[in-house]
Amino acid sequence: MMNITPDIIDYIGYIAAALTTASFLPQAILTLKTKDTQSLSLGMYTLFTLGVFGWLVYGICIENTVIVFANSITFILAASILGFKIYNVLTHKE
Amino acid sequence: MMNITPDIIDYIGYIAAALTTASFLPQAILTLKTKDTQSLSLGMYTLFTLGVFGWLVYGICIENTVIVFANSITFILAASILGFKIYNVLTHKE
Repeated sequence: MMNITPDIIDYIGYIAAALTTASFLPQAILTLKTKDTQSLSLGMYTLFTLGVFGWLVYGICIENTVIVFANSITFILAASILGFKIYNVLTHKE
Repeated sequence: MMNITPDIIDYIGYIAAALTTASFLPQAILTLKTKDTQSLSLGMYTLFTLGVFGWLVYGICIENTVIVFANSITFILAASILGFKIYNVLTHKE
């Protein structure tokens, strides 16, 4: 792309990361606060958590800080939600 | 990373893309089929759609095929859901 410096490109990446992470935060906060995972899909969160982990590995492999940063945060949140869900399923709370 | 070829790295990216896109598909299919957006959050889908668009622009800027490919599909799905949501809000169906 013409006249777009690496700095500006990084900013675009960080804005994108902030937006997609922010969109996921309300669900994460609600679940971590209530520990209620009744209405969440185990299949969806398993795929999503594995996928975010895949993006994290991909970001590390191509040494891309934006991708590693964004997916680290989302992975911690998604894995926590998935952990609560699995715990609730295994302890027959759901 | 040692002994990891660019091809293998690309595969990791495509697997990650397939997983995160797949996790989003059931919601997308349900919404596009029923056009019912009552229980979806306008704020969340606005942030998510803008964020995915941001990742798409970022992928184009750094000329990364995996990121462009993954986010093109998710953007089309997310933008369609957001479109139905905005239409339903504007026409007072919700």
